[in-house]
Amino acid sequence: MEQTDFNEWLSQASAEAEAVLETYLPDPASEPKTARLAESMRYACLSGGKRLRPVFLLETCRYFGGDAKAAGPFAAAIEMIHSFSLVHDDLPSMDNDTLRRGRPTTWAVYGDGFATVSGDTLSLYAFETAAKAAALGVPVKRVLRAIAELAAEAGLSGMCGGQALDMILTGRKPSEEDLRFLYRAKTGALLRASMAIGAILAGASEEEVETVNDIADHVGMAFQILDDYLDAYGDEAVIGKPVGSDEKNGKTTFATLYGRGAGRLVEEETEEALSLLSKLEEKRGEAAHLSALIRQLAGRDH
Amino acid sequence: MEQTDFNEWLSQASAEAEAVLETYLPDPASEPKTARLAESMRYACLSGGKRLRPVFLLETCRYFGGDAKAAGPFAAAIEMIHSFSLVHDDLPSMDNDTLRRGRPTTWAVYGDGFATVSGDTLSLYAFETAAKAAALGVPVKRVLRAIAELAAEAGLSGMCGGQALDMILTGRKPSEEDLRFLYRAKTGALLRASMAIGAILAGASEEEVETVNDIADHVGMAFQILDDYLDAYGDEAVIGKPVGSDEKNGKTTFATLYGRGAGRLVEEETEEALSLLSKLEEKRGEAAHLSALIRQLAGRDH
Repeated sequence: MEQTDFNEWLSQASAEAEAVLETYLPDPASEPKTARLAESMRYACLSGGKRLRPVFLLETCRYFGGDAKAAGPFAAAIEMIHSFSLVHDDLPSMDNDTLRRGRPTTWAVYGDGFATVSGDTLSLYAFETAAKAAALGVPVKRVLRAIAELAAEAGLSGMCGGQALDMILTGRKPSEEDLRFLYRAKTGALLRASMAIGAILAGASEEEVETVNDIADHVGMAFQILDDYLDAYGDEAVIGKPVGSDEKNGKTTFATLYGRGAGRLVEEETEEALSLLSKLEEKRGEAAHLSALIRQLAGRDH
Repeated sequence: MEQTDFNEWLSQASAEAEAVLETYLPDPASEPKTARLAESMRYACLSGGKRLRPVFLLETCRYFGGDAKAAGPFAAAIEMIHSFSLVHDDLPSMDNDTLRRGRPTTWAVYGDGFATVSGDTLSLYAFETAAKAAALGVPVKRVLRAIAELAAEAGLSGMCGGQALDMILTGRKPSEEDLRFLYRAKTGALLRASMAIGAILAGASEEEVETVNDIADHVGMAFQILDDYLDAYGDEAVIGKPVGSDEKNGKTTFATLYGRGAGRLVEEETEEALSLLSKLEEKRGEAAHLSALIRQLAGRDH
């Protein structure tokens, strides 16, 4: 796929995901007594970004022949889960960040107690929203399976588990095994959920769902190791943020473990993901958008 | 129903709910890297109490001829949701409580950042757990409906909405309408979810589920107004906690609005609940346990 075509497609796909999210977020005007809470939920979610998780979800669903409109509630839900985790990560008791994407964080606007409740409500609203897929024609069994997937990948053995492990490892020297577990949970889990849910809603086979999970695992790992690599060796002007922060904070990363060799690991993980994808393509046909998305995330085409 | 029989039944029902909860909580030994998180989730949930929500859920399910064993995942889930809300309510940024039931609160043991994540994970684990009801034979459609109910009653228009409104009303003089909305959301919502989910899982009719919702509404309101009444006029020796705290904190309650007349409101709400229950009894037979539970909560038999 040509880079300019891909860029155009991605910008449309992001806009679609944004519109879907907006549709399913609560309307503050509908109940005055909880208007401020609904408003804070919208503030937390509508802060821009490429909406990669819903883009992956909708595109995987389309690839397996599913109805992207009926997958809308889940596309919104996964972004609500991602946003709730950012709201809580930014809290004074966690990362104590007052800015995100150049805007005050949710707690900086609404207070930390209120932002805690706002994050809680977003997490619950994700499930309320996801359940709506049944009314749009997705078979109930698939909806339930996808809800279980969302809860598991967001929870103890996924995103939250990774967040907790990250807190425990702070100030320690994690092993490569720790790091892999952490990346797989903290970043990989929601990506895995995005692709797996897209496949499940479209009625992909068990085997296909497993392959998609494996693809997402490699993509997530490539993405995270690249992040380590760029922090150590990237060009500030290109990546748009200061480099060297991991070393300054005494953080063990793949760049600490492998030096510039970490770049080779990114390529290996990406190759693995693309090779698994090509197996799907033998049966299901070309996956041009997914393939280009994976290359993009691995930073090879830009 | 005799008080001694009821007491014995309630103590057995509470023990059953406790055992169900224990079964579905995660085992810290199963994954060492997230052991501390799983441990904190158990700590948050296993702090004693009468387990009224799962008791109501399981008893309502039994009353409508449902399989209480298959409702176990939801009984555990509703208590996880209740517990997660307590973990977050106790945080320094919220009520800043260091003790609950005579034990250090979760954040006092694990730190406030970690406790935030622990509460988040409990909330997500509730949905992961609830979805397991399908494997125990509950029709998938009912499981999905019950999950949607749980998310809605816990979320924006339920428990969390009430929590947020409570924060907004702090220091203001709420109207009776505000207070009723608050009580209905903050306390009533999970009680409503407990009874409605029990009925839904058992396959009760739409009309019956609605009646059960109305019953729970009146029970929740009676319970909360009684709380106001006892804080103003109760006997410390009988209720086991200091009285007069609402007045001291300048809180507007039903005792502020109605004085001793609030006691009459408790009776009216209880009568309403029992009268709706007796309509169900005409078709479905005697609801001895539910009726006794409602009287107990309204404080008339003790």
